[in-house]
Amino acid sequence: MHLLSDILGRPAADIDTPALVIDLDAMERNLIAMAAFAAQHRVKLRPHAKMHKSATIAKLQMAHGAVGVCVQKTSEAEALAALGVNNIYISNEVVSPYKLKRVAALARELEALGGQLAIAVDSPEGLRRLAQAVHGQRGVIRVFIEIDVGHGRCGLAPGVAAVPLAAEITRHSALKFGGLQAYHGRAQHFRSAADRRESIAQVIAHVEATKAALQSAGFQVPLVTGAGTGTFSLEAASGVYGELQAGSYLFMDRDYAGNEPDPAQPIFEHALFVKSQVMSVSTSHAVVDAGHKSHAIDSGLPAVHGLALEYANGGDEHGIVRGAVLPALGDTVWLIPGHCDPTVNLHDHLLGVRGGLTHGTVEQIIRVDARGALS
Amino acid sequence: MHLLSDILGRPAADIDTPALVIDLDAMERNLIAMAAFAAQHRVKLRPHAKMHKSATIAKLQMAHGAVGVCVQKTSEAEALAALGVNNIYISNEVVSPYKLKRVAALARELEALGGQLAIAVDSPEGLRRLAQAVHGQRGVIRVFIEIDVGHGRCGLAPGVAAVPLAAEITRHSALKFGGLQAYHGRAQHFRSAADRRESIAQVIAHVEATKAALQSAGFQVPLVTGAGTGTFSLEAASGVYGELQAGSYLFMDRDYAGNEPDPAQPIFEHALFVKSQVMSVSTSHAVVDAGHKSHAIDSGLPAVHGLALEYANGGDEHGIVRGAVLPALGDTVWLIPGHCDPTVNLHDHLLGVRGGLTHGTVEQIIRVDARGALS
Repeated sequence: MHLLSDILGRPAADIDTPALVIDLDAMERNLIAMAAFAAQHRVKLRPHAKMHKSATIAKLQMAHGAVGVCVQKTSEAEALAALGVNNIYISNEVVSPYKLKRVAALARELEALGGQLAIAVDSPEGLRRLAQAVHGQRGVIRVFIEIDVGHGRCGLAPGVAAVPLAAEITRHSALKFGGLQAYHGRAQHFRSAADRRESIAQVIAHVEATKAALQSAGFQVPLVTGAGTGTFSLEAASGVYGELQAGSYLFMDRDYAGNEPDPAQPIFEHALFVKSQVMSVSTSHAVVDAGHKSHAIDSGLPAVHGLALEYANGGDEHGIVRGAVLPALGDTVWLIPGHCDPTVNLHDHLLGVRGGLTHGTVEQIIRVDARGALS
Repeated sequence: MHLLSDILGRPAADIDTPALVIDLDAMERNLIAMAAFAAQHRVKLRPHAKMHKSATIAKLQMAHGAVGVCVQKTSEAEALAALGVNNIYISNEVVSPYKLKRVAALARELEALGGQLAIAVDSPEGLRRLAQAVHGQRGVIRVFIEIDVGHGRCGLAPGVAAVPLAAEITRHSALKFGGLQAYHGRAQHFRSAADRRESIAQVIAHVEATKAALQSAGFQVPLVTGAGTGTFSLEAASGVYGELQAGSYLFMDRDYAGNEPDPAQPIFEHALFVKSQVMSVSTSHAVVDAGHKSHAIDSGLPAVHGLALEYANGGDEHGIVRGAVLPALGDTVWLIPGHCDPTVNLHDHLLGVRGGLTHGTVEQIIRVDARGALS
C-alpha cells in the first residue's frame, strides 16, 4: 500500500495527482511581507484560519507576530485548539445552545493553554444564549459586536444599535466587551482600487459612527477588527482599526490576483497550486484530472500556471485545457485556484515543496486539520 | 466531548448544523424505482458511486440488483474495495504509471473478493501503459473504449478509431475488450425533454457507427455502457446500451429537478438535504450557517425546502435567505443542494433520517468513505 509520507523528500515531479501543493518559498515571502506590513503600521495581525484550516500554519503565523487567528466555526476552533493553537477569535455568530456549550468548553481549554477565546455577536438573543452558556464560568471571553458595514450579511446596523448590546455584555462576569467586528467581504474583490477605497471609506465612517455612539453612552471600544486581503492597507491606515483579519495573502488565488494592485499593499505571490495531469488529448483540447472536486470554482475557474493554456470547466473530475500548443498525455499542468479557502477545504493535506514547483522537493506534509469542520 | 454516534436514535431536530441529511424513506423509494426500471427494460444498472462515495450505499444498490458500481478515480475504487465492494468500473482514463500499479493491485483485490475490475481507455498510449502495468497478471480486467459522443471531453472520435484499440486489447492476456464507454454528460442537464431526446439520438448514432466499425473489423462489442439521471430512459430504449450508469437518481438535486420531466422516466424525490440554522436576522434577510463549504454551487444555488424563501450566496460559510416571512434566529432551514455529487464530497458523513425531516429520527450514520479521494 502507498503511504502519504512516502512522498517526503522526493521530487515534486513524483507527487500523485491531483494534489494541493504549497510553494513554501513563496508562502514564506508572503508571510514575512504581511508581518512586516503589520509591524510597520502598528496594527495587530489575526489572520483568518478559515483559509488554511491548519494548526501548523496558524502557529507559523503566530511565530511571525500574529496575535492569534480568526475562525468562522466552532468546530474549526476545536480542531485548532486540540493542536495547541491558544488564541482564537470566532469572528462569527453562534446561536445554537449545543454549540455554545462547546464554546464555553473551548474558552476553558484556551485559557488552560495560556490563551483566550473571543467571539462575535449581533443580536440580544444571541448574546443572551452566549451568556447563559458561560454563566458562572471563570475566565473571560472577549465579545465583539458585529456591525454590518456594507456587506449585507450579518451584523447590526451601524450606530446606536450596538449600545444596548455593549451594556448587556458588561453585566456578565464571564464576558468582556472586546470591541467591534467590521468586515466588508464583498469590497475585498472590487477590481478597481478606487472602488475599494470608496467602499472602505464608507466602512470606516460606519465604524466611527458606532464608536462615537458607544463612547457617548460611556463605553470605550478597546479594538476594531476586520479587513481582508483586498483592502487591509486601507483599514490599517484608518487609525480606527487595530487588528487585521486578512487570510488569503498567505496563499493568494486567481481572484485576488485579478484586483488592480493598491500601491500601499505588499505584493503577494501565488503559493497555492493544484498539480494535475493530462489524462486525455484530442485534436482540439487536452483533459486534466482536476475538476471542481479538486478546486473551488465559486470565484471563477483556475488559471494555468506557466503555460499558454486556458482552463475550462470539465465537471467534477475533469478540466479541459485549450491553447495553441497542447500538452501531451501524462504531462503535468499546474493550476492556480480561483479561490483558496474552499479549495483548501477539499483536501486533507497540503504538500509543501521547497525549491520551486518544477525542480523542487517535497519538504512538508501539512494536514488540513479543520477540513470539513462546518459546524 | 461530543461523539458523532450520540446522534443515533435522536430526533432530526437535534442534528447539529450544517449537516448533510438523507431522507431514508425517499432514498429507498428512488432506489426501488430505479431497480424496477432497469429490470423492466432489461438493462444492467451500474450506478455511479462518484455521487455518494459510500461503500454502504454501493452495497445497498448491489443488493437491489445493480451489477456493481462505477467510479471516476483509482482512489475511489480503492476506498470502496477496501470495504468489500467487489465489482467496480473506473469509467475514466488512468495514465499515470504510479496509479496503474494500483489499478493492477485493485484488480487482484476485487478478484479475491469474487468480483472484477473494469476500466476505460481512449488512447493507444493509455492502453500501452495499462497493459504494461498488468503484464503477466492472472485474472482479467475488462477494458472499455471511451468514445466522445458529444460531450467534448475524453474519448476517441466515434467510428473506426476504436478498431486498433480493440485489436490491441485482445493482444494482452490480462485484458479483455469490455465494449464501449459512451456518456454525454452535458446532455443530462438540457432542460427540455426534446433537446435531450435529440442529443441522445445523436449519441446513439455515434455508438452504432462505432459498433459497426468494430464489427466490420471482426470485433464483437459485448456491452455499451453510459447514461445518466437526465437521459437514461432514452439509452435504455435504444437497444444498443446494455448498462446504465446513472447515479444522482438516488439523492436528486435542484439541478436535475429543473429538467422538464420525461414521461418514460420514473419520478425521483429529493432525498439529500443540508440542515442549516438561522444565525442572524436583519430587517431585510436572514443568514443561515451553510455556505458553499457545505454545498457545491457549480450547478446553481440550493433551494429552500418547504418555505417560501430564496437562498442567495453568502460566501463560504453563510447563506442569505429572503422572503415575505423571514425565519427567526435559531430556526432550522432545510436546503436542497444544487448538485449532489460535489456536495456529498464536502462531508464526512450522511445522517440518515427515518420518518421525515421534521419529525423523524436519525437511524443511520453513513460514512462518505471516498470523500476527498481525488487521485
